[in-house]
Amino acid sequence: MKKIIFIGSGNVATSLAVSLDENNYKILQIFSRSLSNAKLLADKVKAEAIDDLSKIKTADIIIISIKDDFIKGILKSYHFDNIVHTSGSMDINIFDERVKNFGVLYPIQTFNKEINIDLSETPFLIECNNTSFEKSIRELAQSISSNVFKIKYNDRKKIHLAAVFACNFSNRMIGISKEIMENNNLDFSLIKPLINQTMKKISEGEPNKLLTGPAKRKDVKIIENHIKLIENTDHKKIYELISKDIMNLE
Amino acid sequence: MKKIIFIGSGNVATSLAVSLDENNYKILQIFSRSLSNAKLLADKVKAEAIDDLSKIKTADIIIISIKDDFIKGILKSYHFDNIVHTSGSMDINIFDERVKNFGVLYPIQTFNKEINIDLSETPFLIECNNTSFEKSIRELAQSISSNVFKIKYNDRKKIHLAAVFACNFSNRMIGISKEIMENNNLDFSLIKPLINQTMKKISEGEPNKLLTGPAKRKDVKIIENHIKLIENTDHKKIYELISKDIMNLE
Repeated sequence: MKKIIFIGSGNVATSLAVSLDENNYKILQIFSRSLSNAKLLADKVKAEAIDDLSKIKTADIIIISIKDDFIKGILKSYHFDNIVHTSGSMDINIFDERVKNFGVLYPIQTFNKEINIDLSETPFLIECNNTSFEKSIRELAQSISSNVFKIKYNDRKKIHLAAVFACNFSNRMIGISKEIMENNNLDFSLIKPLINQTMKKISEGEPNKLLTGPAKRKDVKIIENHIKLIENTDHKKIYELISKDIMNLE
Repeated sequence: MKKIIFIGSGNVATSLAVSLDENNYKILQIFSRSLSNAKLLADKVKAEAIDDLSKIKTADIIIISIKDDFIKGILKSYHFDNIVHTSGSMDINIFDERVKNFGVLYPIQTFNKEINIDLSETPFLIECNNTSFEKSIRELAQSISSNVFKIKYNDRKKIHLAAVFACNFSNRMIGISKEIMENNNLDFSLIKPLINQTMKKISEGEPNKLLTGPAKRKDVKIIENHIKLIENTDHKKIYELISKDIMNLE
């Protein structure tokens, strides 16, 4: 059974560790700067929790899954081999030339610690510095997903950008909707059937073709009145810009 | 059986006419400036298609469902009684004082002519100038939905604003995502499992709590790199603004 170590215990690390633990991999250690966070995940996957990188054992694969800004610092201070990061936006060449086996394992997915998700359909984008390590990483990814693709950094970062719009920004639009309702003492559940229908439509068809609403109809009067109604200055600008963008569509 | 006439044959008119026709209302006439559009809907609901407003017969309820800008013009030129508009953003007082019975019937929903949707959960917001007409409108709305609420203009327009963010703008974010993928010759289907999971999460929980991604993590480096990657100037600004808005959340 191959041995895995995680550097990081956040949303991505948690989801991957739990899935790999269920699929014939042995999770050896979980590192986090916060030992209690490390323990939280380590307990789930029967691993050792550590907060000291010098205690890291030998493993078949080390998965570093922390905020991009911190990866460089850790890689400067410690030498790891057989290591992949899970970032959509970080170059594979972040790793030092002296590292023998390194690569990237980026799942196109949104992870929350509290939510168990089935990763079997999630695309995993992999990239490695040599074919034999690539084989191990492909094997690992394929143990949890049927969608594994070899994609280079130049495309991966664009896919990550597209993912931010599709996931984080669509989510935030619904968050702003909720704030508008609640700030006006209106019940957000009034909007729920609309959200459900929107999602159903998008999952079945072409998002742009299914657009409705004032901007799509170029109903400038409504747009002006809506902008007056918005109290938050940033939300005002967001409304203006997206409406303009939709009006420019045809 | 109560007799209904539609002024307008667009997305909302189509969905309402089809639903009412299935629920014990007689659709008498469909008016559109384009006779062929009127016919398209009239044929579906066994009604007469007209493109001349002077041909409108007597009906129990006239539903005017056209672009807000055009409603005023039509109401100035012709006198109708027992009339409701279906707009989220138009005052009930758009109707002339001389009209005996008037009101609003606003469904919080996104409609496309081609997609039949079950309206039974869709909230209908009603507002009328007298209680006896309100009773007829409530009865009509309740024949197709179990969620009928009396809501005044001042709240209705805010709900409409919230609906634009939740539906049109979340939809557009996914549309922009698709454009980024396709402009870079990348397969949009790579993003689909992410969209499905995003929707699943939102329909189950709190949108803001479930936010993930660079802005949520305040990962400024990624945000800067993404902004450099975006070619479309408006999309660049949209990315900047929404990221700033997410970073301000806590």
